[in-house]
Amino acid sequence: MSKNFDELLQKVKSVSKKTLSVACAQDVPVLEAVKEAHDLGIVDATLVGDEAQIRSIAKDIGMDLSDYRIVNVEDKVEASLTAVKLVHDGEADMYMKGILPTKDFLKSVLNKEVGLRTGKTLSHVAVMEIPGVDHLVFLTDVAFLPYPTLQDKVQMIEYTVDVANACGVENPKVAPLAAVEVVNPKMPVTVEADELRKMNESGEIKGCVVDGPLSLDIALYESAAKEKGAQDRPCAGKADILLFPDIHAGNLVYKAINHMVPGIKTGAILTGTKSPVILSSRSDTKDVKINSIALAAVLSEHMKKANA
Amino acid sequence: MSKNFDELLQKVKSVSKKTLSVACAQDVPVLEAVKEAHDLGIVDATLVGDEAQIRSIAKDIGMDLSDYRIVNVEDKVEASLTAVKLVHDGEADMYMKGILPTKDFLKSVLNKEVGLRTGKTLSHVAVMEIPGVDHLVFLTDVAFLPYPTLQDKVQMIEYTVDVANACGVENPKVAPLAAVEVVNPKMPVTVEADELRKMNESGEIKGCVVDGPLSLDIALYESAAKEKGAQDRPCAGKADILLFPDIHAGNLVYKAINHMVPGIKTGAILTGTKSPVILSSRSDTKDVKINSIALAAVLSEHMKKANA
Repeated sequence: MSKNFDELLQKVKSVSKKTLSVACAQDVPVLEAVKEAHDLGIVDATLVGDEAQIRSIAKDIGMDLSDYRIVNVEDKVEASLTAVKLVHDGEADMYMKGILPTKDFLKSVLNKEVGLRTGKTLSHVAVMEIPGVDHLVFLTDVAFLPYPTLQDKVQMIEYTVDVANACGVENPKVAPLAAVEVVNPKMPVTVEADELRKMNESGEIKGCVVDGPLSLDIALYESAAKEKGAQDRPCAGKADILLFPDIHAGNLVYKAINHMVPGIKTGAILTGTKSPVILSSRSDTKDVKINSIALAAVLSEHMKKANA
Repeated sequence: MSKNFDELLQKVKSVSKKTLSVACAQDVPVLEAVKEAHDLGIVDATLVGDEAQIRSIAKDIGMDLSDYRIVNVEDKVEASLTAVKLVHDGEADMYMKGILPTKDFLKSVLNKEVGLRTGKTLSHVAVMEIPGVDHLVFLTDVAFLPYPTLQDKVQMIEYTVDVANACGVENPKVAPLAAVEVVNPKMPVTVEADELRKMNESGEIKGCVVDGPLSLDIALYESAAKEKGAQDRPCAGKADILLFPDIHAGNLVYKAINHMVPGIKTGAILTGTKSPVILSSRSDTKDVKINSIALAAVLSEHMKKANA
């Protein structure tokens, strides 16, 4: 079980090396992250995009391109379709966004012929190493799916359980979060959290322990759980997966702790696709991108094993 | 302007000393906080509740009761009605919860004859001193009103502007938060945030600058605002007031940063009442209670001046 990103980066090295396909790779931060991930031995990469620009940036950042496959496609939309097809065809294991609009990148992911669509809803998992919490925490959804339905949430739990499993966390503890830890008919979020708990109890949601509603302090801190007499709740103080009521709650928590907690580390991945997809954003640091590549690599290994 | 709680505690000493009425004061953490606030010169207090128990606890914690008025009422509901009436009648300036169920405490606040009801919706403001942010941040609502309507939010802004004013923050910058900083019809929260901005522009919401929707990073951090090209937004990087979409978003952020950010400081107050009300919870530390008493004292002064 990877308890932090250092352990995850070690774990990646123990599986067969994966290949990343990057759409529109002609971007300094993206190439810096790919270079470092490659230098760490985590991935090989195929760089799809404007070759002249890629070569120029590589020269500037001291990146030896002889280790990489380059596919020259100048048009950005076309480049994304070429890059995603490599993953679709099995020539690469995972797909990463370079410098193109998110909308166009997602269109390539969902392309019916060459994309990675499964027919299921796409969602997003952020993985965080939080000082004071002794295990990796998997947050969903802080960035992609605005208002998930109950059925979406069932899938989001399944996706996130896969990501947790890929990181070596077996039978993860899932906390559907709310402002309070008791069911209150006046707060639909708590009713839905209880519904998810029941679906887990009845075996409809498998491979995890769902215990909701939980407040964030009870989910992550045993001291808070004890203080509130909730220490016997199955996920109290030990939640691996935090399921947010909606994107606003998730994103506001994510951005708050990302900016305010010294030493916090993050990686993230899109879920609901045939192969791992990294939807990096411009504001992600190099470390976030590298952590996300590592996540994608262990998830790729996990998905291949599951399908084998 | 109080930039942090130390400055706020200094500010309180510059206004005429206020009197706190405590309902069911027979509780160690409550009496410890009242004692320390009194020792700091912030308040006088009337302790309503079980006198024998109050005297016994006072002895244990070295609290000299000759400085306090004690009103012996053993029944908890009756004690709360007695305590709130002192504020209603002007014999005390603010009202604080001791050891009784929140439900009963709120009933006393809303009591038609002796309570502090205004007929307006009750809400809650948490004030936080966040390391890395150079001013106090006012969060609403992280603890009380589950699903505020647009009209509720207008009132919540008015309440929080009053609290900010009481802390010396003139014309506070208000950020109605969302996952994103642009209006998206598929995300009703962003439409509502924009609605509040327009109501401020047209003069319907006064005494502040409303700029929404904003994401949390843009609201509080100029670097994030610049990165996203949002540095010219009126509240970018400088938001005083964070208005949350609902209680889940607010509470999850509040609990996350309260537990995860070293050195964070907090105080809180109920709003929408005739006089300041402190709805302290068992899990609040002594410092949180003292900060809340200080907030109540400056708010009491502010409300008296406004009504003079």
